[in-house]
Amino acid sequence: QGRARALPGAAKASSQLLVCGLALFLTIKSNLLHSQQFTISFQRPSDCGVEQFYDISSQSCVKCGPNQSSSATGAFISGVCANRLQSGFAVTEDGYGCILCPGSLTEQGTCQCPSGSILAAACLVYTNLTACQALGNMCVMNMHSFSSVANDACGLYNTIFRATAALGSTQDISYWRANLPWLYYGDQPGLANRVLQTEPLPTGFSFKGRNRNTDINLVAAVYNARGDFLQWEKVGGNNLQLCPDTARRQEAAYTFGTAYQETVNLLRVYAEPLFYDVFVDLSRGEDRRLLPLPTRNLNQEYNRKFINRGESNLNDWYLSRRVLLVDTLSGREKSLGSLPKVIRIASSIRIGFQLVPGTQKGQVFPPLLSVTYSDVVITAPNTQTVSVLFAVEYEMDQTEAHMKTDIALGVLGGVSVLYSLVKTASWKRRIGSPLIDMETVLKFLLFYAGDLANVFFFITVGTGLYWLIFYKAQHFVSVLLPLPGLQEERFVAYVGCAFALKTVQFLHKLIQQLSVDIFFIDWERPRGKAKHDPSPVSIWRTYFVANEWNEIQTIRKISPTFQIMAVLFLLEVVGFSSLALRDPWSDLQRPPQSYSPPYSLTLRYGLAATLWLCIGLLQIIFFTAFHERFVEDKIRQFVDLCSISNISVLLLSHRCFGYYIHGRSVHGHADTNMEEMNINLKREAESLCGQRGLLPNTDTQTFQISITSRLRLQYDRILEPLSRVGLYINIPHTMNHFLGSVIDHAHRDMEYVVRDKLFFERVIGMEFMEPMDKSIFYNDESHSFSDVLFYGNEATLLIFDTLFFCVVDLGAQSFILAGVLTYFQQMIFRLIRNGIGRRNLANKTLVDQRFLI
Amino acid sequence: QGRARALPGAAKASSQLLVCGLALFLTIKSNLLHSQQFTISFQRPSDCGVEQFYDISSQSCVKCGPNQSSSATGAFISGVCANRLQSGFAVTEDGYGCILCPGSLTEQGTCQCPSGSILAAACLVYTNLTACQALGNMCVMNMHSFSSVANDACGLYNTIFRATAALGSTQDISYWRANLPWLYYGDQPGLANRVLQTEPLPTGFSFKGRNRNTDINLVAAVYNARGDFLQWEKVGGNNLQLCPDTARRQEAAYTFGTAYQETVNLLRVYAEPLFYDVFVDLSRGEDRRLLPLPTRNLNQEYNRKFINRGESNLNDWYLSRRVLLVDTLSGREKSLGSLPKVIRIASSIRIGFQLVPGTQKGQVFPPLLSVTYSDVVITAPNTQTVSVLFAVEYEMDQTEAHMKTDIALGVLGGVSVLYSLVKTASWKRRIGSPLIDMETVLKFLLFYAGDLANVFFFITVGTGLYWLIFYKAQHFVSVLLPLPGLQEERFVAYVGCAFALKTVQFLHKLIQQLSVDIFFIDWERPRGKAKHDPSPVSIWRTYFVANEWNEIQTIRKISPTFQIMAVLFLLEVVGFSSLALRDPWSDLQRPPQSYSPPYSLTLRYGLAATLWLCIGLLQIIFFTAFHERFVEDKIRQFVDLCSISNISVLLLSHRCFGYYIHGRSVHGHADTNMEEMNINLKREAESLCGQRGLLPNTDTQTFQISITSRLRLQYDRILEPLSRVGLYINIPHTMNHFLGSVIDHAHRDMEYVVRDKLFFERVIGMEFMEPMDKSIFYNDESHSFSDVLFYGNEATLLIFDTLFFCVVDLGAQSFILAGVLTYFQQMIFRLIRNGIGRRNLANKTLVDQRFLI
Repeated sequence: QGRARALPGAAKASSQLLVCGLALFLTIKSNLLHSQQFTISFQRPSDCGVEQFYDISSQSCVKCGPNQSSSATGAFISGVCANRLQSGFAVTEDGYGCILCPGSLTEQGTCQCPSGSILAAACLVYTNLTACQALGNMCVMNMHSFSSVANDACGLYNTIFRATAALGSTQDISYWRANLPWLYYGDQPGLANRVLQTEPLPTGFSFKGRNRNTDINLVAAVYNARGDFLQWEKVGGNNLQLCPDTARRQEAAYTFGTAYQETVNLLRVYAEPLFYDVFVDLSRGEDRRLLPLPTRNLNQEYNRKFINRGESNLNDWYLSRRVLLVDTLSGREKSLGSLPKVIRIASSIRIGFQLVPGTQKGQVFPPLLSVTYSDVVITAPNTQTVSVLFAVEYEMDQTEAHMKTDIALGVLGGVSVLYSLVKTASWKRRIGSPLIDMETVLKFLLFYAGDLANVFFFITVGTGLYWLIFYKAQHFVSVLLPLPGLQEERFVAYVGCAFALKTVQFLHKLIQQLSVDIFFIDWERPRGKAKHDPSPVSIWRTYFVANEWNEIQTIRKISPTFQIMAVLFLLEVVGFSSLALRDPWSDLQRPPQSYSPPYSLTLRYGLAATLWLCIGLLQIIFFTAFHERFVEDKIRQFVDLCSISNISVLLLSHRCFGYYIHGRSVHGHADTNMEEMNINLKREAESLCGQRGLLPNTDTQTFQISITSRLRLQYDRILEPLSRVGLYINIPHTMNHFLGSVIDHAHRDMEYVVRDKLFFERVIGMEFMEPMDKSIFYNDESHSFSDVLFYGNEATLLIFDTLFFCVVDLGAQSFILAGVLTYFQQMIFRLIRNGIGRRNLANKTLVDQRFLI
Repeated sequence: QGRARALPGAAKASSQLLVCGLALFLTIKSNLLHSQQFTISFQRPSDCGVEQFYDISSQSCVKCGPNQSSSATGAFISGVCANRLQSGFAVTEDGYGCILCPGSLTEQGTCQCPSGSILAAACLVYTNLTACQALGNMCVMNMHSFSSVANDACGLYNTIFRATAALGSTQDISYWRANLPWLYYGDQPGLANRVLQTEPLPTGFSFKGRNRNTDINLVAAVYNARGDFLQWEKVGGNNLQLCPDTARRQEAAYTFGTAYQETVNLLRVYAEPLFYDVFVDLSRGEDRRLLPLPTRNLNQEYNRKFINRGESNLNDWYLSRRVLLVDTLSGREKSLGSLPKVIRIASSIRIGFQLVPGTQKGQVFPPLLSVTYSDVVITAPNTQTVSVLFAVEYEMDQTEAHMKTDIALGVLGGVSVLYSLVKTASWKRRIGSPLIDMETVLKFLLFYAGDLANVFFFITVGTGLYWLIFYKAQHFVSVLLPLPGLQEERFVAYVGCAFALKTVQFLHKLIQQLSVDIFFIDWERPRGKAKHDPSPVSIWRTYFVANEWNEIQTIRKISPTFQIMAVLFLLEVVGFSSLALRDPWSDLQRPPQSYSPPYSLTLRYGLAATLWLCIGLLQIIFFTAFHERFVEDKIRQFVDLCSISNISVLLLSHRCFGYYIHGRSVHGHADTNMEEMNINLKREAESLCGQRGLLPNTDTQTFQISITSRLRLQYDRILEPLSRVGLYINIPHTMNHFLGSVIDHAHRDMEYVVRDKLFFERVIGMEFMEPMDKSIFYNDESHSFSDVLFYGNEATLLIFDTLFFCVVDLGAQSFILAGVLTYFQQMIFRLIRNGIGRRNLANKTLVDQRFLI
């Protein structure tokens, strides 16, 4: 289906077309590839003097021959005059001259002259220039394809090209033979690399500043099928692009850096086939020069292979010149007057710019025009439509960027292995087990997942931010965005890795938090002095503390919903999302009529992740520096409450490691009435009583603790009846008594020491001392017991949310959907954490769930 | 500035143009206004037979005269031939013939013939038909305006029109004189009403189903300035509309019901001025008929007044025919070869359809073409732009809809006065004051604000929903949307009223809630038997209950953030917002290339409010029927907690009215240890103890209470020291003792009775019995104490949120902004309610704020 075949009419006509022109013997100038080799001077028919005619083959003014009068020549061959001729073409009987019939063509491709006149006498023998153009056009209609049969248009062209080597080249371009149209770069494939990547355009592009230059000036020499040169056209608006649109939007296609893509359905069945030789206009003032655009025809066959289709090796390609928009001629059967049964249409035209690697001046190589033709069988001429694509794309070699990313990934990945090893070692010490078993390996992998997730995350955010800043802020063009598809594939894969690994880490932390051991130690002693009937110590203080602990399980350092709302507001209302468009402008609000280029996934990710992180950081700063200090600090309130209620909290996140909040009341009793409570609070506010710390005359109430295995064994032994038979009547009392006596140094063999953590211990998060004989209590002013809550894991949660938001957006390209789904994700995990955490709290502290509300 | 003056060139040329044509004496047919009077048969030049020529004045085929050969006539006068003539026009010397110059015009408007030839011999005398068209076009260029000076183009036209009355009318239309172009409806203003609102188009429009018909078929007869008939053109694409756009989007303009509006900046300086006679094509099969479009030229002057500018009275207008897109002729000075100094452009073209009142078949009156011309002074021909507007609008008479709204408003407004009066009476009883003072009036106004807000809200939502359903769902067109601007003004005002009044109600309720009186009655008695040293009763149960009360202050029946997210998801991701576009389609997702009509404010409001209410109701159903029953019911948990903790809650929302939650423990004591608590809870679960109700053997714990003034006075007296000197040491104890004894019937003079509320008392929310001697406790299973919380006012909050969301959206036309701001609004009011509510709770119950966390 996709294979372009020579259409019936084209094959017939082309097989009858024969060689044009006679060889003029001129010396051959050998041309080495030197600077500006491929530019030509820009001359138009109106530029020609009186003694000159406009040579439509070389597109330059040529002096008239000695036996030609200037006026006749000028009128005869100039494009302006050729424009008026309205007839078909045929070949002379000898086969070496191309002629234009004044009448119409017969079915055999010979001229049908008006009745009463004689053929080769009534039919005017025409000069070879237009005829050679016509032959070239036949070859273009035949998709520039060579086949083994030599009598097709391209074969003939090639024969003539070789036979007229002595004729010399035109405009100093060796592939452009005098009197022939220029159709190929060389006489065989293999030059694409040299053509496309040797010499940049003389002027660079720049997006901003005084030298701002974003105009892509393309001009095209337009021919009709008969080879008549029609005119020079400035490319823009509708003339190379079949998609109709507003002028303003079409202009965007010719602004450097604005990725342009339009697809529409249309069919201009009866359009006259026009042929375009497209050039970049390099004119500066009087120095009018053109650079031809190499064309890559994806339908071009060479030795029965579509040589231009491979993306990998440039040098397989066979570049050509001259494109065609709609071919309504080849598909006509029998006569040219009939309607075409099938038309060939340039269904995809892409102009690709490639940046010179390492340029700081916005230099680009000659742009490549890629064209794909499709055959459309005409079934309903008036209503049928066909989809066509016109795109302008910008590319730079991403190898270096990829290499840099790989290096960063390798280095950071290595560092994270080390860090994960330290974490595993720390974990081994905290669970009090020296063996390296399967569980250890698994833990290592889990830690490694988290660290690697961070590596991927920061590399992708860095990359996204790099593109956002460098692409949008550059004056002279020095970087171009990665193309959608292949070039962005790797980036998207990294984001996917980051998200998957972060999810593993998040779930791991969540499960850890849901199984933490906790016990509330009540220091209150019964008041009644009568031994036989002491008033029981009220449990309500414990209920209160447990209830508060239950409430702070899912509080966070930021407001997650505010986060979503703020990000959505900035992206969709303020208009930051415009920054992710594939154009170099950084306006936030675009007028609704303007062309809206497609979004760049890289920029969307960079933008969303950066905004998310920035707002998250601002929130953390606000809550830490202002809200928690002046309004409300839930964590400090909890520690405060422990002290007021005369209750200590023991948290064991690992077998032999955990946290201790010392809550012994400085007043001795807390179980009292409101008057006494208020007096106590007042006394403490006025510093009329002792300090709250565990050690005398200190204020430190919170500790990280490394406990001995012996202590842990005793702890587990007390809880044993619970797991065995669900009996728990005496457990709280026993445990309370046991832990209280440990804290009070009443157990000789379960002593502990209090010390500060070393700086290095803090940094790598591992204790150097093993609790062999004595447990160790580390002073911990920073409330690190919140590590077993959402609160202490804000970084993980924030990055997880960021990645969740970005991954949804990469998939659906909708920030709103991403915001909504992130909200639901947060809600679901909060419900899980709250629900199961509450059950765990009830199980471990034996407080009934109806007090955890 | 806006006043269109005759331009210099036009005035000069028109003053020299003289009467064309000679009178043919024919009988005058008098035409009454009858059905289809204004339609003409549709004939094109190609329809004319061999013996006929195409009469460009009457736009029909006419048989050739006796002394004219058919071939010559056909070639001479048909539009196709006239098209080729490229010269100016002038008048013959006798002043009664219009001629076309083969050369150019002199400054005096006479022909400048090629040198060597003689004027009236070399200049060809032309027939009168084209010349009359040219005169008509001069008049159009002169804005159809009459002035007192009779020698301008329109004056001449009118003179001829009157003088040739005997010539008879064309196509049976009395305003269309034979051989003259049709320019005016009648010879003076006043016919607009008859023309526009008498007879509908024969075919109705329908949006859906088998008879779907939404195509607006317009055709135009096109003339050039010289009066040559050029061709018939199907109106569509670019030919009446100066705005370039994709074909697909331009097509949308000619689809019935799709409000179309495009504004672009452009200037086609050198376009040839073309004149359009626009018709609706009514052809059905062989019956080819046209209906002329009446034109309202807003620049038209009549007796030096712009008569067509008033919107109020149709009969002031003077309708005309023939429009002009760009006039580049009149502004040329000296000669026609010079560049124009100023051009006149049709800066606004609106085609307005008006629906026949009460139609069920989609019938419309003849559409009105309104055109406004602007003069643009040419300063920079290549870069200058000008803003032009092309719009297609649909209108129906909204008087009936407005009347219905007014009736509904009147009736419901009256009812709400009554309801507010009842509320005021109830309030008077509850505060125990019989006097009618300023405060009473103020209260009435506050209640009335709330009720009136509801009336406005439901009328606007109903209206929005009505348009949404009827406009989008109709098969045959029977309603058209209110136009933006005037017709929607009233609607927007109603929404504004609803929002303002709802805000007043919301703030009123908020302030009421922030000042409610509350006291916790502790039933616990000291355990110690020794009188000299009783263990004090622990305050921690009170702290626990107060803390929980603090937490349930701002819970709601729905999740407000989920609400916003769900609405945004439906509107912006699923695409419901497309339903608010001013077109009849109900597709949710539109292809990005398609034309996007403007939004209708009415539809946006109806859509957003309906979605918001629907999701709110679904949430209420979910939370009430599922979540509160099977997961968690915060209100029930609180009542439960009261009972477990042996604490009752007394709430006084008014001076003599409030709520009582009976929380006396069935176990006698709650201040005990965990073992005993768990045993108690188990006993109760197994129904081994008494019931929790206030009355023996009942379960009713919650009551509405009407208390006697005596009780209230005593209550206030106990609290008095607090307000006076801030002394509160003994207050909790005294109050606890007093209220406990009242509930225990220990106060003879402060008795109370328990009874059920009457059905009618519930309905109107007022107690019929006044608590004179005894207080009255009404059984209240439905936890109506939540009326002093956000929870019990969900309806008010939901409607307030809805209105807030909609009002922001009406202002900014952005659902996302509305969602974000609604989130912040909810957050701010929640913070206010929580913060001040917490302070009020601490003040009233004397519980220190650090236990309310």
